[in-house]
Amino acid sequence: MCAVVGVYDNDRAAKLVYRGLEDLQHRGQESIGIAATHGDRIHVEKQMGLVGDFDPKRLEKLPGTVAIGHLRYSTAGESRIQGAQPLWTECYHGELAVCHNGNIVDQRHLKHEVMGLGGTFHTSSDTELVLHLYARSHRSNLAHRLVEVGSRLGAAFSLVMMTGFGELVAMRDPWGFRPLVIGQIGTTTVVASEDCTFKALSMTMGQEATGVRDILPGEMVIVDQDGISSITPFHADRTLQCVFEHVYFSRPDSQTFGLFVGEVRRQLGRSLARLKPTPADIIVGIPNSGMFAAKGYSEESGLPLEMGLVRNQYIGRTFIEPDHDNRSNLVEKKLIPVRDLLEGRSVFLVDDSLVRATTSKKIVNMVRLIGRAKEVHVGISCPPTISPCFYGVDTPRRAELIAASHTPDEICQMIGADSLTYNTLENLRTAVHPYEVSFCTSCYTDLHPLLEILGLNKDGQPKHKQALPA
Amino acid sequence: MCAVVGVYDNDRAAKLVYRGLEDLQHRGQESIGIAATHGDRIHVEKQMGLVGDFDPKRLEKLPGTVAIGHLRYSTAGESRIQGAQPLWTECYHGELAVCHNGNIVDQRHLKHEVMGLGGTFHTSSDTELVLHLYARSHRSNLAHRLVEVGSRLGAAFSLVMMTGFGELVAMRDPWGFRPLVIGQIGTTTVVASEDCTFKALSMTMGQEATGVRDILPGEMVIVDQDGISSITPFHADRTLQCVFEHVYFSRPDSQTFGLFVGEVRRQLGRSLARLKPTPADIIVGIPNSGMFAAKGYSEESGLPLEMGLVRNQYIGRTFIEPDHDNRSNLVEKKLIPVRDLLEGRSVFLVDDSLVRATTSKKIVNMVRLIGRAKEVHVGISCPPTISPCFYGVDTPRRAELIAASHTPDEICQMIGADSLTYNTLENLRTAVHPYEVSFCTSCYTDLHPLLEILGLNKDGQPKHKQALPA
Amino acid sequence: MCAVVGVYDNDRAAKLVYRGLEDLQHRGQESIGIAATHGDRIHVEKQMGLVGDFDPKRLEKLPGTVAIGHLRYSTAGESRIQGAQPLWTECYHGELAVCHNGNIVDQRHLKHEVMGLGGTFHTSSDTELVLHLYARSHRSNLAHRLVEVGSRLGAAFSLVMMTGFGELVAMRDPWGFRPLVIGQIGTTTVVASEDCTFKALSMTMGQEATGVRDILPGEMVIVDQDGISSITPFHADRTLQCVFEHVYFSRPDSQTFGLFVGEVRRQLGRSLARLKPTPADIIVGIPNSGMFAAKGYSEESGLPLEMGLVRNQYIGRTFIEPDHDNRSNLVEKKLIPVRDLLEGRSVFLVDDSLVRATTSKKIVNMVRLIGRAKEVHVGISCPPTISPCFYGVDTPRRAELIAASHTPDEICQMIGADSLTYNTLENLRTAVHPYEVSFCTSCYTDLHPLLEILGLNKDGQPKHKQALPA
Amino acid sequence: MCAVVGVYDNDRAAKLVYRGLEDLQHRGQESIGIAATHGDRIHVEKQMGLVGDFDPKRLEKLPGTVAIGHLRYSTAGESRIQGAQPLWTECYHGELAVCHNGNIVDQRHLKHEVMGLGGTFHTSSDTELVLHLYARSHRSNLAHRLVEVGSRLGAAFSLVMMTGFGELVAMRDPWGFRPLVIGQIGTTTVVASEDCTFKALSMTMGQEATGVRDILPGEMVIVDQDGISSITPFHADRTLQCVFEHVYFSRPDSQTFGLFVGEVRRQLGRSLARLKPTPADIIVGIPNSGMFAAKGYSEESGLPLEMGLVRNQYIGRTFIEPDHDNRSNLVEKKLIPVRDLLEGRSVFLVDDSLVRATTSKKIVNMVRLIGRAKEVHVGISCPPTISPCFYGVDTPRRAELIAASHTPDEICQMIGADSLTYNTLENLRTAVHPYEVSFCTSCYTDLHPLLEILGLNKDGQPKHKQALPA
Repeated sequence: MCAVVGVYDNDRAAKLVYRGLEDLQHRGQESIGIAATHGDRIHVEKQMGLVGDFDPKRLEKLPGTVAIGHLRYSTAGESRIQGAQPLWTECYHGELAVCHNGNIVDQRHLKHEVMGLGGTFHTSSDTELVLHLYARSHRSNLAHRLVEVGSRLGAAFSLVMMTGFGELVAMRDPWGFRPLVIGQIGTTTVVASEDCTFKALSMTMGQEATGVRDILPGEMVIVDQDGISSITPFHADRTLQCVFEHVYFSRPDSQTFGLFVGEVRRQLGRSLARLKPTPADIIVGIPNSGMFAAKGYSEESGLPLEMGLVRNQYIGRTFIEPDHDNRSNLVEKKLIPVRDLLEGRSVFLVDDSLVRATTSKKIVNMVRLIGRAKEVHVGISCPPTISPCFYGVDTPRRAELIAASHTPDEICQMIGADSLTYNTLENLRTAVHPYEVSFCTSCYTDLHPLLEILGLNKDGQPKHKQALPA
Repeated sequence: MCAVVGVYDNDRAAKLVYRGLEDLQHRGQESIGIAATHGDRIHVEKQMGLVGDFDPKRLEKLPGTVAIGHLRYSTAGESRIQGAQPLWTECYHGELAVCHNGNIVDQRHLKHEVMGLGGTFHTSSDTELVLHLYARSHRSNLAHRLVEVGSRLGAAFSLVMMTGFGELVAMRDPWGFRPLVIGQIGTTTVVASEDCTFKALSMTMGQEATGVRDILPGEMVIVDQDGISSITPFHADRTLQCVFEHVYFSRPDSQTFGLFVGEVRRQLGRSLARLKPTPADIIVGIPNSGMFAAKGYSEESGLPLEMGLVRNQYIGRTFIEPDHDNRSNLVEKKLIPVRDLLEGRSVFLVDDSLVRATTSKKIVNMVRLIGRAKEVHVGISCPPTISPCFYGVDTPRRAELIAASHTPDEICQMIGADSLTYNTLENLRTAVHPYEVSFCTSCYTDLHPLLEILGLNKDGQPKHKQALPA
Repeated sequence: MCAVVGVYDNDRAAKLVYRGLEDLQHRGQESIGIAATHGDRIHVEKQMGLVGDFDPKRLEKLPGTVAIGHLRYSTAGESRIQGAQPLWTECYHGELAVCHNGNIVDQRHLKHEVMGLGGTFHTSSDTELVLHLYARSHRSNLAHRLVEVGSRLGAAFSLVMMTGFGELVAMRDPWGFRPLVIGQIGTTTVVASEDCTFKALSMTMGQEATGVRDILPGEMVIVDQDGISSITPFHADRTLQCVFEHVYFSRPDSQTFGLFVGEVRRQLGRSLARLKPTPADIIVGIPNSGMFAAKGYSEESGLPLEMGLVRNQYIGRTFIEPDHDNRSNLVEKKLIPVRDLLEGRSVFLVDDSLVRATTSKKIVNMVRLIGRAKEVHVGISCPPTISPCFYGVDTPRRAELIAASHTPDEICQMIGADSLTYNTLENLRTAVHPYEVSFCTSCYTDLHPLLEILGLNKDGQPKHKQALPA
Repeated sequence: MCAVVGVYDNDRAAKLVYRGLEDLQHRGQESIGIAATHGDRIHVEKQMGLVGDFDPKRLEKLPGTVAIGHLRYSTAGESRIQGAQPLWTECYHGELAVCHNGNIVDQRHLKHEVMGLGGTFHTSSDTELVLHLYARSHRSNLAHRLVEVGSRLGAAFSLVMMTGFGELVAMRDPWGFRPLVIGQIGTTTVVASEDCTFKALSMTMGQEATGVRDILPGEMVIVDQDGISSITPFHADRTLQCVFEHVYFSRPDSQTFGLFVGEVRRQLGRSLARLKPTPADIIVGIPNSGMFAAKGYSEESGLPLEMGLVRNQYIGRTFIEPDHDNRSNLVEKKLIPVRDLLEGRSVFLVDDSLVRATTSKKIVNMVRLIGRAKEVHVGISCPPTISPCFYGVDTPRRAELIAASHTPDEICQMIGADSLTYNTLENLRTAVHPYEVSFCTSCYTDLHPLLEILGLNKDGQPKHKQALPA
């Protein structure tokens, strides 16, 4: 997961990108980077950490009227500055800076091809392929080059790019896995991962945003001195927009893929409540991800929603254990059970997902021991997560997905709950109705239409291992 | 405001103090300090910032079985490392380290007296008086010395102290302004500002806390090799326990002065709702301080509680504005209006206090402009704040307290709300019933019994300016 | 200017590289980087600053038995982490890390060629060409590939490289501009910019270095599991070894290009003294660069050498002016005139070079005002510097070289000296006799044999501007 | 050892103190602190580290026309920010800031007395006594108070102090252990530990310093709105000015106690050379401390002085060993033997002192192994150091002073030299003639006149242990 922002035609372009990234911080906490240009050279500043860690003085090194920015999500493996975006290159066609949200599914094949032709990779990021494909294109026209690049990439990508000549480009793969929104604020054009960015920039610029809309699956928008031009050069039979954006990733106040995220979550809570009678006295949402579903559950069940778990706002990401043992009890510091509300009661906890079972186990334990609840039931507003994602969400490997190999009853026992209820796939589809046909729900179904198309198996590997050029 | 913790008889005393301070972070974010001893020398480590900023390696410099710790609240003026606690001294009676929550009302008089006798002050903190009074005592017995010190201090103090010989002392002024709790976890004795610390330490130590109780107003507890001894040497006609601990300061899961804090807040919301019919469609609590009151308001009014304002968890304290203009729009980054829930509706916002009006004005504005609410009403779960506090709460000067010089109607206009409702003093007293006689409500009444006793006027100054020794 | 080190076959390879770099710190203070491998993946750690700023804990991230390291010299323009070496790439032939001392004179031509074939550049460093040429080679054999790379590069290079398979490579252009030394310490093979590294590593490893010798101009050495193999695939009519290594750059205890550096400097001082009678009472060397020449001057002239200027060892590179005006008076803080030795005397100052005249002017002024010298004469142990260097020394542009446009008399007046004496080119050649035919003295002659060969003019530009592929 | 500076009547007082401290960095590298005042409140900024580490922006927090500053020497034990000076207090007489060079020999007795009267100590520094004695004085006149303080302190002190009313005070104990100089630059009065400060400030201010003279032993100077007043209230039978200031501590270009330091060192080298014939081919000074003595030795012996050991200017104080073993081989990185000058020769090394033998052993070893010298002889320009110092020099305890328990022959064997020659006490006295009667040479004689006067034994302890007030 990542966030991308682009701003065209504003004297404070880099500052606006910075301001826009602040409101997308939930999409990536590992690194921040911004590139800007006057239409001559591209300057890039990036670093590890949150937007708030980025010294605003560095913005002074980013003059220009066009800028793009990126936030990277913290992944287990290589969290290095090298992987931070925007990626930049100088090539035959001039300078290019690239911000990418998504994951190039077929990167192995493409990387081998580029390396076979003399390409030099300096990161382990799939995004670097964009630079190489661009540099190798023989097309003399920017749009033609980019169509060539996008066609080769396949999916998943929501890309915001900038040339050294000051052209801004936004494009989205034809399946539309990741969101991407475009709009105007005054004469300034803005692209961003979510529309909440437009609200933030409107306040800052003192002007309403206008014409805010999704960049469509398969669409490419180029903004340059001649204005905004849009074509839709990439085609697919159906869209596969990520349902997990609604379940977890997007901000609740965003309108993603045409639906208010908070409302989808509330509906998931409602449908969960309808599945069977609630064996509890009170409903408690697990902050922050389960709050909207808990609200819907409470409404539907008629049972009171109580703030039985409160978030400790001061326990931050930089926390280090005094005993250096492990970070596992971080959750126990982040969440505070309110005994006054829990003691002696039967509690129904609502969360959006249950991935590895470790966190849920701790929460159930806290609610029982510190909160002194009589019973602890758990409701998950989505179906069991049974497959990893190959399209840009940083879910763990299949072996770590508890629901891929255990029944709900087994998981219930593992986390020490009195009962465990998952929502159904049908309810999930209904919640995003009438868009159900167009969503990717692979993590819940383990069905992977895109992998089929690309001739890859369910682990993203080639079905028949070919001899690669060694 | 501050937090204090003390641990006696545990090989990991400093680590437990550190762990305890983590759960008291809401009481002070300016500095952290810990002192520990083996019964020979006292080692002290302190620094500016949050508990999470304190490098756990520094705990290795704090060996010993007795330790005390402190968090300091960020005040406007001198935020220097010199003022960070524990304060330490070496004197005729040996070494002493002191952690203080409260404010010595009569410090000017005492400071002049000590200076007149040759005392050297090296901080601007009132807490330093404790060291001087202790050092000057002629009593050869620790308890006698401390009674002498406490009697001179007057109020307000909840003190946790440690001698170089490894004695741990906790004492509370006879009016009981600030909370202080004591209990056991196994053979280890713990004192802390709030009982939430005991829950945290129970989890860490894998043992239930036992015998957790308030240190009483006027009580002094000494823990040493002979065990725990308690006397109550300080006396007052009535107690003046700070009602603002319930309104705002204590954590909602704490039981402070015998009442669950979250429950008091909910009752305040309920009584606010009974004052007059609610002119709105939905109730929205302002995170985090107004959430419990909003819940109570919703229950009493029967109107739905909606998560119309969400907290942006990533906007932290270290945030610096890119434009260097001012920090005033920080609140606009911290709170996110959820348009889907607010648009076209009449919204009733609930908060615990309205101090300067600037923050409320911004929130009302956001809910209207970004949230697109039809109407914005504001309810404050407490009476108007009309007096500064002289007993340890960092409220602004009288001139900055908007309610000290404006009517609710005027304030309503200033913040741009459609209506503004305060709770009544009577309702506040009822919420903490049957304790009403014993609470300090000076900030709402501008009546100051303690200042009367001390012969000071309402600004904490001598009524008749005497010629001080110059 | 830069420093390179490589270590083969030692469990502590990265640590030894680190230790070796410490003794080459005089060659580069801008950035430090180390790469190491076990023969699988290459790990790279680099950062801005001195060796001493590099946290030794980062060495733990550099396991392996083969390692290379680099120090970069601070240049005026782009001092960014991106330019720090080793540069790394993954390509068709696997991983490669490269450390480079020198400057690819013909880089513009090569870069355009590589970009025309789809190459992507991610730094502004000429060294990146090595990666691209390597990746594009169609040769299946490492040695063949590298011969191809070196033949294309031309000059100037002293390269130390490492493959992901754990092969160590060292190669030097056929003109031999920059030094490169190889030797053994026990079973470990070491390559380094100067032989002083071998002394440092001998002490650390407790073993004498053996077989220490120059890698010859045009030689390529590959160290792998089959041992050390050497070929000399690059040829030139004559060598052009940099005389400035002796004058200034190499450490005085190094034996560079077969001669002891300190001894060359002393001989330069001696020959300067023979040019004409010294109009002074005492000889004073300007620390540190002029000390050896001053010693020789004193010996030859028979006049006493006095420590009339002492270096303030505590004024370091991180110094920032309190007035933020400029850094120009740094030299006045670094050098201390000893009045007791200078007062009333006629002083002859000896330095190795006079580049911009600004520093010399300040020193003359200090010796006169603070030292109260009667007369201040200046002797430069080399001829006037009249040309910039295109082969790896960071001399200023021609316009800033004072001697390129002024006579010695004019310069003497500018710096406020009573006389100014330069050494002659003939004396410089004699000092490095019998090697004179093989040295590059372009900075003193403005004759550029290599530029001639490459068809470039005296500014390193193409003589006849060709239409480049745009 | 420490450095003190004071500036009176200059709008940039704190900046000038900062600039003055830069040139006294050799006297203390542990911490830096500056205090300044407008004549109302005193502001203090201090931190660990070198002058160059002090962010000049902090100077903006030090407005005022009067300022004092301090550098602290790194001592083995407590290197904490608490001990950094200026020490500050607020007391009956107002605010006071104190900078101290020296050591209060009789501190134990005084500290017990002050504690017995209720004093609170917040550092382990003897300097804190100044604050307490000042605060306790009953005298209403500043000068009277300070005479009282100085009379009680005894020795050793060179103090620069500042009151909150903007009065600047400098005073020196009657034995005159530590230097202290006063002078004018324009209308600004400056006091400093050494006169080299005046040269630096003259350059910065563009004006010659005038009237620069020693503050005399026993003299107290007060600078206030009425001008400069001097009295000499402290008396002693003789002066005991520290001879080690000339041997090692003062900067060679300073005139300390009336003599040029570099010249004294050269005379010590000359007299050492006269003791016996030199068994060597060349003379090599150990940088930096032995350079001036080596110069004198070379002149007297007629043997050539060679730069056989060069200092590696880039190995700084922040260096951390990659192996974390110990810092002991730091000397091996700081000093570079020049083999070309040493190989096959008999070398006579000259240094000023030989304290623990460990450093000398390493240098002898390096000169032999890396330099390949035939023979290595060592000459020490002073007599053997046989006693610790109680008057402000941070020499090791007696047990660590190798010469306190070993003969020169034994030490020669320990350090692995071919011969070892010490200078004689008589020669040392001659070098500082005609001042010999007034110097403290306790470290060479183990005779302690001051300890006698104070009734202390040779370890600075009471001769007859009295029962102290416990």
